[in-house]
Amino acid sequence: MDEFETIERLFRPLAAGTPEALGLMDDAAALPARPGFDLVVTTDTLVEGVHFLASDPPDLIARKLLRVNLSDLAAKGAEPYGYLLNIAWAPGWDEARRTLFAKGLAEDQAACGLKLFGGDTVSTPGPFTIGATLFGWAPAGKMILRSGARVGDLLLVSGTIGDGFLGLKAARGELDQLGAEAVCALEERYRLPRPRLELSTALMQFASASADVSDGLIADAGNIARASGLGAEIALEKLPLSDPATGWMAGQADKSVSLAALATGGDDYEVVCTTAPDQATAMIAAAERAGVALTIIGSVTSEPGARGTHGGVSVALDRTGWRHG
Amino acid sequence: MDEFETIERLFRPLAAGTPEALGLMDDAAALPARPGFDLVVTTDTLVEGVHFLASDPPDLIARKLLRVNLSDLAAKGAEPYGYLLNIAWAPGWDEARRTLFAKGLAEDQAACGLKLFGGDTVSTPGPFTIGATLFGWAPAGKMILRSGARVGDLLLVSGTIGDGFLGLKAARGELDQLGAEAVCALEERYRLPRPRLELSTALMQFASASADVSDGLIADAGNIARASGLGAEIALEKLPLSDPATGWMAGQADKSVSLAALATGGDDYEVVCTTAPDQATAMIAAAERAGVALTIIGSVTSEPGARGTHGGVSVALDRTGWRHG
Repeated sequence: MDEFETIERLFRPLAAGTPEALGLMDDAAALPARPGFDLVVTTDTLVEGVHFLASDPPDLIARKLLRVNLSDLAAKGAEPYGYLLNIAWAPGWDEARRTLFAKGLAEDQAACGLKLFGGDTVSTPGPFTIGATLFGWAPAGKMILRSGARVGDLLLVSGTIGDGFLGLKAARGELDQLGAEAVCALEERYRLPRPRLELSTALMQFASASADVSDGLIADAGNIARASGLGAEIALEKLPLSDPATGWMAGQADKSVSLAALATGGDDYEVVCTTAPDQATAMIAAAERAGVALTIIGSVTSEPGARGTHGGVSVALDRTGWRHG
Repeated sequence: MDEFETIERLFRPLAAGTPEALGLMDDAAALPARPGFDLVVTTDTLVEGVHFLASDPPDLIARKLLRVNLSDLAAKGAEPYGYLLNIAWAPGWDEARRTLFAKGLAEDQAACGLKLFGGDTVSTPGPFTIGATLFGWAPAGKMILRSGARVGDLLLVSGTIGDGFLGLKAARGELDQLGAEAVCALEERYRLPRPRLELSTALMQFASASADVSDGLIADAGNIARASGLGAEIALEKLPLSDPATGWMAGQADKSVSLAALATGGDDYEVVCTTAPDQATAMIAAAERAGVALTIIGSVTSEPGARGTHGGVSVALDRTGWRHG
């Protein structure tokens, strides 16, 4: 199946009914201006063996590609609009695998209100490498930045933290002692992020700053702090944990070190955000109405850097978590 | 040099003075609407060993990345605005090479009025793989499509054709018989495309359809024909050739086969476009005022497909030229 047939048979249906895409028959897409809105753009690249496993099913890889990017839009409070796709097919990506990949895109496009605008496909002798550039809408000047945090703001995080870290371990067969159900739940969490698009209203109303948790909670809270010219302090005992993560913690001797691992591990695709202390209760209630738990985990400080504490004692944090690209 | 330092030291200066980029400190860029304009978006990926040579200087690779995408904007009549960068660094991309790469970006940004909005950098165990998504502006609804050609329109091409094909041969040391000057000129043409941004006014005023010549003249004229539901016929003896290409042709026994190779070879980054017969003279004059030669090479037909003739006789065209991704 050559590039021409791939585009014609697998990708053109993903752009059906989308005038911006021009039937994928042009060099470019044309996006009309939406008065009163900014176009929010974000892009992420995934490399086989680095960001997903070679054994992952092609449809899940496609969905992960869209979802890691949707997670960025979610953190910005943006409404999904469409995307461009960059694919470097590796040897072995035959018609069956390509078809499954397109099926995964179709599924999440429909679920998230995304439309395919265009892209580029090439061949590579190296690992399968894919990128997506996502477009979303935010009211003009209202996109939630990383840089809006103020000293004294509370730090909150959605859902549960550490499941991405444990999910990779589970997928590698390193957590079999937790039992099949827990392993399955963690693996699914690693393979298929759940971008928090439903948080948009609560974030737009209450967040002073926001980012998605992709590089690890500490790193991403640190990114907010740095962009705001401030610091962040996180009380690790307050981390919201899933049942499987609670089970894993029960078997760990050094709680501080283990919590630090969960907080620096990455791939959670939750939202970490800040709000003024007197807004936190209303924000948590608004998130709850949208079906998302928000948990207060710390605060914004004037001293630069991101720090973790456990029972009031400072915890050493792995530098790789902080700077992982 | 890790990703954090690379962004901080090499890429942040490329986004200086660009509010859309938020200092490259956020998850996303926010592009304000420009009333009365569509945002034109295009993306291309380059893989080492496939789209450029491993021995190419890093600054030239960076400039080629921007220029192949700028060539798409040029063909659409769009005004360059900014870009996102996706980089998968391969082993060996140390500080010196990364610095040169950023220098190449800086040079062409300044030359073409582009601004860096953001992007993503990762590591790959495979070949160095880079993508750019370029943004440009076109008056609302006025982007020049591939699909606007009409039966009887003339086909025109800018500059000279075949130098990309010969440039790759020259870079591989296969054309040494042509002499050092010709080899240098061809190599430079292959390594550093010259997007025809200065054609914008002539295209906007006169073109019924337009595309850039990246996959080969026959393929790209064929793309216009197909998108327009029509065919294209190109008289190969009318191809505008550079002096080195004319020199190469002089040594070829079978002129038809050699012209077909130049017309299907790709990487010329010229513009192929169509216009009504009674507009062609004015269009050529407008292009000339902008410093670009436009040559009539054929016409749009009702019979589907792209065909080449030489002295009125049909010429067999390599299928790979037609479908090369």
